[in-house]
Amino acid sequence: MDFADATAVTPPTDGGGAYDGAVAPGWDIGGNANGGYLLSIAARAMAHAAGRPDPVTLTAHYLSPGKPGALRIETELVKTGKRFATVRAVMRGPEGKAVIAVLGTFGDLDPSAAADAPTSVHAPPPDLPPSDECVAMRRVANSDDGGPPDFMHNIDLRLHPEDAGFMAGERSGTARMRGWFDLRHGQAVDTIGLLTAVDSFPPTIFNLGLPVGWVPTVELTAHVRARPAPGALRCAFTTRFVTGGFLEEDGEVWDSTGTLVAQSRQLALLPRG
Amino acid sequence: MDFADATAVTPPTDGGGAYDGAVAPGWDIGGNANGGYLLSIAARAMAHAAGRPDPVTLTAHYLSPGKPGALRIETELVKTGKRFATVRAVMRGPEGKAVIAVLGTFGDLDPSAAADAPTSVHAPPPDLPPSDECVAMRRVANSDDGGPPDFMHNIDLRLHPEDAGFMAGERSGTARMRGWFDLRHGQAVDTIGLLTAVDSFPPTIFNLGLPVGWVPTVELTAHVRARPAPGALRCAFTTRFVTGGFLEEDGEVWDSTGTLVAQSRQLALLPRG
Repeated sequence: MDFADATAVTPPTDGGGAYDGAVAPGWDIGGNANGGYLLSIAARAMAHAAGRPDPVTLTAHYLSPGKPGALRIETELVKTGKRFATVRAVMRGPEGKAVIAVLGTFGDLDPSAAADAPTSVHAPPPDLPPSDECVAMRRVANSDDGGPPDFMHNIDLRLHPEDAGFMAGERSGTARMRGWFDLRHGQAVDTIGLLTAVDSFPPTIFNLGLPVGWVPTVELTAHVRARPAPGALRCAFTTRFVTGGFLEEDGEVWDSTGTLVAQSRQLALLPRG
Repeated sequence: MDFADATAVTPPTDGGGAYDGAVAPGWDIGGNANGGYLLSIAARAMAHAAGRPDPVTLTAHYLSPGKPGALRIETELVKTGKRFATVRAVMRGPEGKAVIAVLGTFGDLDPSAAADAPTSVHAPPPDLPPSDECVAMRRVANSDDGGPPDFMHNIDLRLHPEDAGFMAGERSGTARMRGWFDLRHGQAVDTIGLLTAVDSFPPTIFNLGLPVGWVPTVELTAHVRARPAPGALRCAFTTRFVTGGFLEEDGEVWDSTGTLVAQSRQLALLPRG
């Protein structure tokens, strides 16, 4: 199933704000959905409710795991303005349990609208080897080799060789993950797909020597700067501060034309030992 | 009026979730409230609704200016768990107009809880001259010298001399603002006060040569890592990407013991020319 189908939602027919969606078969990871993928589903519903095509800034708080199967996204339009519309939502699982709470502002990132905006860029795109020299991830590290195809079979993720050693127990010592992101099934990544990209890489701190195997996201914020051009995306994620039982993970996503298309930051938890 | 009074809220007496608050006299800037100060007021209400003292991660979307006078904060508890509680809120002005929408997760940042957490810090606190060698801001740049005391008289903001030249038209050329933040009236900054700190400095891009005089915040996210120790806070704000009509502003706040107490990122708008 391709990304568009795997994130499709059905608008309400009763004039309310509740959309139906699902964690699609084969899009989970061992029974749990990726947080960015859940955010993409929520964003489809919210963009429809906003009447604007593109998420500009979107924040999700992760409340419980997203399990395969039906989801309901309860949206509420908070404000609609000339340029932007702000929507909040709660995504719920089959028994009504809250999975994520989301707050987002949507707009139209048609490139012509920003063509005359002043530009000032103070950092380069991540320096990556060509994708065929990177390390393809076909499964989540530590997952069972014999399992059925899952999320990692629907995206095309290739890690910078310097950052991929953790899979063989050789950690780089730098809390960083860089690589190429694309969708399989021949689909281009749109602004909704960027929300999946920013949460698809292994945790940065897998490259540190901390005694941690699991890094749950508390909150993820993504800023979408532009609609990506077709082609694989250059991504980089870094962590500077592991303190107080928390860590941040800062992400950048650049498209094939060298344009910054998204920034992300998540707050994750270091589970108590 | 001190910060605690200027951000106080009155809990609902009807069992609902609506709190009363106000933009206090002298806490506006020429008739509009600072975005971080508004967030502090909202966070007081949300922390009460959450039953947890400290914001851990809080995101606000800015919808209309906060004017001096009464505010209502409509809170809703989305989920309460063992360690955290997640609350969403809309702050409204006198005529019910939405001022900010907020989504936050609250917890207890008592230092004993994090004492045994692994720590890994990859960046130093900002290097600042002693505060008496910094440039005190008593008013917003460009504001009328003859106005009444306002927000800038209630906080103690001292800019790094290298970043303060923009006030005299001498821009550093680097999109950065560093300095000391403290509250006046002898109050220590608590985790709610950090939310004001992260939005109190002049925009970073005042140090670039862009033709911009006004940089409205679309969205601000703050992560609170620890309760600050007493004393002035070291702060640094930087911008790397001014693209597509938007810019991010990344902030760090460190306390007097050299502990990172907050990180922030805001998405701001470059008004169209």
